[in-house]
Amino acid sequence: MPLTTALTIEAARPLLAGLDYAGVAVFAASGALAAARAKHTIVTFAFFAAVTGVGGGTLRDLLIGAPVFWVYRSDYLGVCMIAAGAVWLLRGDRFREDALLWLDAVGLAAYAVIGAAKALSYGVPPLAAVAMGVLTASFGGIVRDVLAGQPSVLLRREIYVSAAALAAVVFVGLDLAGAGVEVAGLVGAAAGFALRAVALRWNVALPGYRD
Amino acid sequence: MPLTTALTIEAARPLLAGLDYAGVAVFAASGALAAARAKHTIVTFAFFAAVTGVGGGTLRDLLIGAPVFWVYRSDYLGVCMIAAGAVWLLRGDRFREDALLWLDAVGLAAYAVIGAAKALSYGVPPLAAVAMGVLTASFGGIVRDVLAGQPSVLLRREIYVSAAALAAVVFVGLDLAGAGVEVAGLVGAAAGFALRAVALRWNVALPGYRD
Amino acid sequence: MPLTTALTIEAARPLLAGLDYAGVAVFAASGALAAARAKHTIVTFAFFAAVTGVGGGTLRDLLIGAPVFWVYRSDYLGVCMIAAGAVWLLRGDRFREDALLWLDAVGLAAYAVIGAAKALSYGVPPLAAVAMGVLTASFGGIVRDVLAGQPSVLLRREIYVSAAALAAVVFVGLDLAGAGVEVAGLVGAAAGFALRAVALRWNVALPGYRD
Repeated sequence: MPLTTALTIEAARPLLAGLDYAGVAVFAASGALAAARAKHTIVTFAFFAAVTGVGGGTLRDLLIGAPVFWVYRSDYLGVCMIAAGAVWLLRGDRFREDALLWLDAVGLAAYAVIGAAKALSYGVPPLAAVAMGVLTASFGGIVRDVLAGQPSVLLRREIYVSAAALAAVVFVGLDLAGAGVEVAGLVGAAAGFALRAVALRWNVALPGYRD
Repeated sequence: MPLTTALTIEAARPLLAGLDYAGVAVFAASGALAAARAKHTIVTFAFFAAVTGVGGGTLRDLLIGAPVFWVYRSDYLGVCMIAAGAVWLLRGDRFREDALLWLDAVGLAAYAVIGAAKALSYGVPPLAAVAMGVLTASFGGIVRDVLAGQPSVLLRREIYVSAAALAAVVFVGLDLAGAGVEVAGLVGAAAGFALRAVALRWNVALPGYRD
Repeated sequence: MPLTTALTIEAARPLLAGLDYAGVAVFAASGALAAARAKHTIVTFAFFAAVTGVGGGTLRDLLIGAPVFWVYRSDYLGVCMIAAGAVWLLRGDRFREDALLWLDAVGLAAYAVIGAAKALSYGVPPLAAVAMGVLTASFGGIVRDVLAGQPSVLLRREIYVSAAALAAVVFVGLDLAGAGVEVAGLVGAAAGFALRAVALRWNVALPGYRD
């Protein structure tokens, strides 16, 4: 039975909970790392980690009218603070940039599926559910870039938002086709990750308009 | 009977529906055109079109506590995708800039009235309803400019936000005075469009502070 | 009895109402002053005043699921318009910058406490309530800076967000420890103001990462 009719977000949680924390942690670390590169203070580390970690899911929840997922509990914000502290203490700026990019690719694919799944479970129709997946995966990073005064990933030709879109489209399509939420989620996330991996490994980019 | 007491947004919809789609399409096209000028990819076209097309109404709905108008249906987002695709395929970058500016002026005036009308129908008092009209008409374009890293219309002296404010003030004032929502809406939109037209035609701008 | 269990925001209002208007007015004036420095028009004055004055509390209310505090009444928006008009007429650009910085320090400390208190009264747990205090105090100014295309306070090493964090942490901690909301609020605001005052007076800044 497709997620659109059968599944509430509560029922999906056991499946997604691990991915969820991991996604928040990875994005929070990427925010803290952006702060480290610009030699910011510990307070800016924490702010960037929180905004990047929970920003996408926050916008999704506001748009679909759900309670914002991290506000009435302490764990998600705690994960962001731990990620910020870890990057500060462990000399996060010395990590190979690769490592973060690959972790970020995992987070991107997982988040696109999680965002679309939560939207479907609230009764959002397919096209808007795909948009929610894309927003959940990419909005935190966009806000981080705007706050930091850097050109956002939107303005680069890198395949990034596209990979989130692919993950969400495949997930929503398979779910509608009756594949079951586990299969749809795994295949969707794998497709999005694979596209991002190809882009990272061979430096593939989308063509610009009328170049 | 004034809109403040007599009209729900449902009753106003037949009147406003056509303007509504037209406004979303015009703003979405202006977002896609901004992407075309910067030679962005098709994914950025779609993102800019959606943000610019539905951004203002989204903020209005969040602020007044209404369900966000485009999330639980597919038509508005579909209109944005079609506008993005049309600009991409039809060489939108070759359109005369004038054409878009004039279309945008229609959208601006219509949106300011629509935004104020929805706010009034939710029981928002006059001053805040005017603010909602201004936000609905101008916020999408502001976000587009911030994301694109360009100076927003707020920072220019052009009569743009002022035209939206005039449309909203005239509409709210006439509605309160008992003119009826159709008359108030048409006169308000006409006043806002006229002011914007004067600004475009004779290049009129507001004075800066203590110049 | 701690605020977390005993107090609704309605009960806290008599205590906080004066501070509340003062905070909105101070922040609105700082927004209008930013517009004056860049020689913007009266419309941009009003826009910047409103965004800076009510921005932080707006985000807080959206996140905790409360009705946005200024939308269904006219007084807060009216205070912002008056502040914008006053800065325009009174040659706000000639005020000593100091004066505004010190007023802003009062607003920052008061707002951090007010934001955390409202969050606690809605049942938000301590860590997230501190985050709400910080956001309420700092978000309006961040949006003002982003819209104006200037580096936000987040990117400077000044002790600003940190002072808001201290005020919120002290308030929430004392309230949880049973100090009573009046004592907790006064001590929290005083601690935040004192830290900001030290930073302003002796030009103290936080160390950047691995400088």
